[in-house]
Amino acid sequence: MASYDYDLFVIGGGSGGVRAGRVAASLGKKVAIAEEYRYGGTCVIRGCVPKKLFVYASQFPEHFHDAAGFGWSVGESSFDWPTLIANKDKEIDRLEGLYRKGLGNAGAEVFDSRAELVGPHEILLKASGRTVTAERIVIAVGGRPNPHASLPGHELCISSNEAFHLEKLPKAIVIAGGGYIAVEFANIFHGLGVQTTLVYRGKEILSRFDGDMRRGLHKAMEEKGIRIICQSVFSKIEKTGDDRLKATLNDGEELIADQVMLALGRMPNTENLGLEKAGVTVGQNGEIPVDAYSCTNVAHIHALGDVTDRVQLTPVAIHEAMCFVETVYKDNPTSPDHDLIATAVFSQPEIGTVGISEEDAAKRYDAVEIYRAEFRPMKATLSGSSGKMIMKIVVNGSDRKVLGVHVLGHDAGELVQVLAIALKAGCTKDDFDRTMAVHPTASEELVTMYQPTYRYKNGEKA
Amino acid sequence: MASYDYDLFVIGGGSGGVRAGRVAASLGKKVAIAEEYRYGGTCVIRGCVPKKLFVYASQFPEHFHDAAGFGWSVGESSFDWPTLIANKDKEIDRLEGLYRKGLGNAGAEVFDSRAELVGPHEILLKASGRTVTAERIVIAVGGRPNPHASLPGHELCISSNEAFHLEKLPKAIVIAGGGYIAVEFANIFHGLGVQTTLVYRGKEILSRFDGDMRRGLHKAMEEKGIRIICQSVFSKIEKTGDDRLKATLNDGEELIADQVMLALGRMPNTENLGLEKAGVTVGQNGEIPVDAYSCTNVAHIHALGDVTDRVQLTPVAIHEAMCFVETVYKDNPTSPDHDLIATAVFSQPEIGTVGISEEDAAKRYDAVEIYRAEFRPMKATLSGSSGKMIMKIVVNGSDRKVLGVHVLGHDAGELVQVLAIALKAGCTKDDFDRTMAVHPTASEELVTMYQPTYRYKNGEKA
Repeated sequence: MASYDYDLFVIGGGSGGVRAGRVAASLGKKVAIAEEYRYGGTCVIRGCVPKKLFVYASQFPEHFHDAAGFGWSVGESSFDWPTLIANKDKEIDRLEGLYRKGLGNAGAEVFDSRAELVGPHEILLKASGRTVTAERIVIAVGGRPNPHASLPGHELCISSNEAFHLEKLPKAIVIAGGGYIAVEFANIFHGLGVQTTLVYRGKEILSRFDGDMRRGLHKAMEEKGIRIICQSVFSKIEKTGDDRLKATLNDGEELIADQVMLALGRMPNTENLGLEKAGVTVGQNGEIPVDAYSCTNVAHIHALGDVTDRVQLTPVAIHEAMCFVETVYKDNPTSPDHDLIATAVFSQPEIGTVGISEEDAAKRYDAVEIYRAEFRPMKATLSGSSGKMIMKIVVNGSDRKVLGVHVLGHDAGELVQVLAIALKAGCTKDDFDRTMAVHPTASEELVTMYQPTYRYKNGEKA
Repeated sequence: MASYDYDLFVIGGGSGGVRAGRVAASLGKKVAIAEEYRYGGTCVIRGCVPKKLFVYASQFPEHFHDAAGFGWSVGESSFDWPTLIANKDKEIDRLEGLYRKGLGNAGAEVFDSRAELVGPHEILLKASGRTVTAERIVIAVGGRPNPHASLPGHELCISSNEAFHLEKLPKAIVIAGGGYIAVEFANIFHGLGVQTTLVYRGKEILSRFDGDMRRGLHKAMEEKGIRIICQSVFSKIEKTGDDRLKATLNDGEELIADQVMLALGRMPNTENLGLEKAGVTVGQNGEIPVDAYSCTNVAHIHALGDVTDRVQLTPVAIHEAMCFVETVYKDNPTSPDHDLIATAVFSQPEIGTVGISEEDAAKRYDAVEIYRAEFRPMKATLSGSSGKMIMKIVVNGSDRKVLGVHVLGHDAGELVQVLAIALKAGCTKDDFDRTMAVHPTASEELVTMYQPTYRYKNGEKA
């Protein structure tokens, strides 16, 4: 048996890499991990966590507005962007520290360096120029925003990465994209007082989500004052004389803004990683294809998380890491389970979704029952807010199994997290019906819709 | 067959009575309903609904405080109690209107009158002096706060009924009781700026709830500045010279306040109802005992809701009403299901609970696993709020079934509503473990506690 410097070398200190490295180290393996930017990865450093903190920040004007109907007079409020950035950065620093500490406590060696493969078992640490060897390698280098290099003026635009570090809050922003990142940032900036326009090439935002959620959120965003332009793309971005930007759409319309943000998908960080030197195959979009156990075409090299382009979510990367450890170090082959993953869009209103959409169910099942409620939440009766909640349960008419649940409104993310337990356990609509309501809550609607709102038979609305 | 004026006469226009009357009428039965005060009952008029609106009102200072850490400067705020009362009353009027309209649309005759039994099938309408007859009678007269008549000075005190209509907000209030009504109002008044003291004779507030919830809420309330005095009772209440009140405790301590509120349980509204004239038996505490189908000892007289003192909750009364209609008018004997009812305490922080407590599980099961997380919610990292969330899952160690889930913190009521679906369906801890996290949410803690925090073996903590 060859002797290696490490049992395991992890390239990439994000959610998947850190988890794999930490748990393997805690099992007594000799582990090293290298990260070129900051530990914590997209999620902690420039994704889920700072995004959610921005979401909270952007919700306060709603609270201030709502207060009046409940008897409160609130003085003038003002927002200071640098304070938010500084406090957010402090929290991110703290979390990064916890990630490092967790790795160190478990006994992993932590490198602050870009790492590239220079052979099947050889890794070059770019910071020191040192090459080390490892019996096994985990590639968890994640992804980054697609720069849309073919767009004239794309270099004038920001991505979500830069949005977390803007020196000043723009007065106006134009965001390109219709996915959850574009939508979330549109709501964040609007909530913070920025004049916001969203440009999306598709027919409706949030493709693949349930149609009610897509239309419902679109409507709610427009009612708040966000302009949404669908079926349109940028033809170019230019600087104006007064240090602003002009985005020209394909129909000729010109949008003036202080920032233009591109949120047009993400791409895997596989360039110049030396994958070819280790013999690792790369897919058409730069992703690393893996088998059911996250193994690449090279038996001792695994890949986890966003770089594999399976499901780009933090908990999925962590789950894949745990399955890797079970499979490789605990002699318990475990394949990651990517079925029935609940997700949230932290827009305002929020979307929470688990299982399949009404549209998909109608295509895939002979008999489908839709239970749907659209209502004004109780708080809105006094606050005067116009937003409505939508709750929808998609049921297989032949066996009563709940195929999907979709929620638009406050706490939708929290609700679908728990709903996912019921769906994962295979609950039926009868299980929902048997459950006593908790009054007064919004979620009691989920257990009090006894009659289908409408049905599908063989794909046709009946 | 005798001929009656009505197929069904419902006494009491609360949640249970209105549902029974409306649904029976919609089936073509000739129905009348009588209510002496206001349609909607405790829940709508002076319970759940106005309470929840008060809770919303009392949460705004927290929002104002939290905003600073997110970069917001908020001007001075002030609260006007009459505005809250007026807006609340407008909403209650609207809801009462909907209840009346629903009854009318279904074809029920609606009386604004106290109704008393004057024979087995005879009902006297006190407002008109008219006596009518009905084949069947439903008694759904509800309950009211116990006035604690043996307490010297109890007539100087208010109950929750009056709390909804105080002319002015007190500067200081003393509340007696440790149940959910006492606790909720203590948090409401404190949130609105009232100096609040809670006096409870028991060892710890919220008896029968999980111990972690009881201690956790107690601690959180004290940290906010609510004084809680346990194992103490009032010996008397007196007026002071300056139009305030003095509550003397059994240890001699004197508490001065503008209002003293008694929240010491509720009692059924069965006095002078003529039950004896119809032959209906009444229990020791004034409640009407019923069988598994909500039938009293008189075959054609049913009783529903709080007056039966089974489970005093709005959704339960509604469920009992639906079961009554199934049983009596649809030839489908259906017994109300009182098992695994989730409930919420709309304190701040909120409590949501479904299933049994840790303490009960330890007594009733040989092997119990406790999964417990106590953590600072993400929003608090920037807001600086000190409150922690507690989430606890109680599991039967022998079959992995989840016996109870208890949540302290934001949205706890919403979460347990959905958790109740999983528990009602008999989900196991493995179903929780199999569920992918939704990140970042608070509820993802519920699906990521893989190892028991501690266990019980034969009632002993192991």
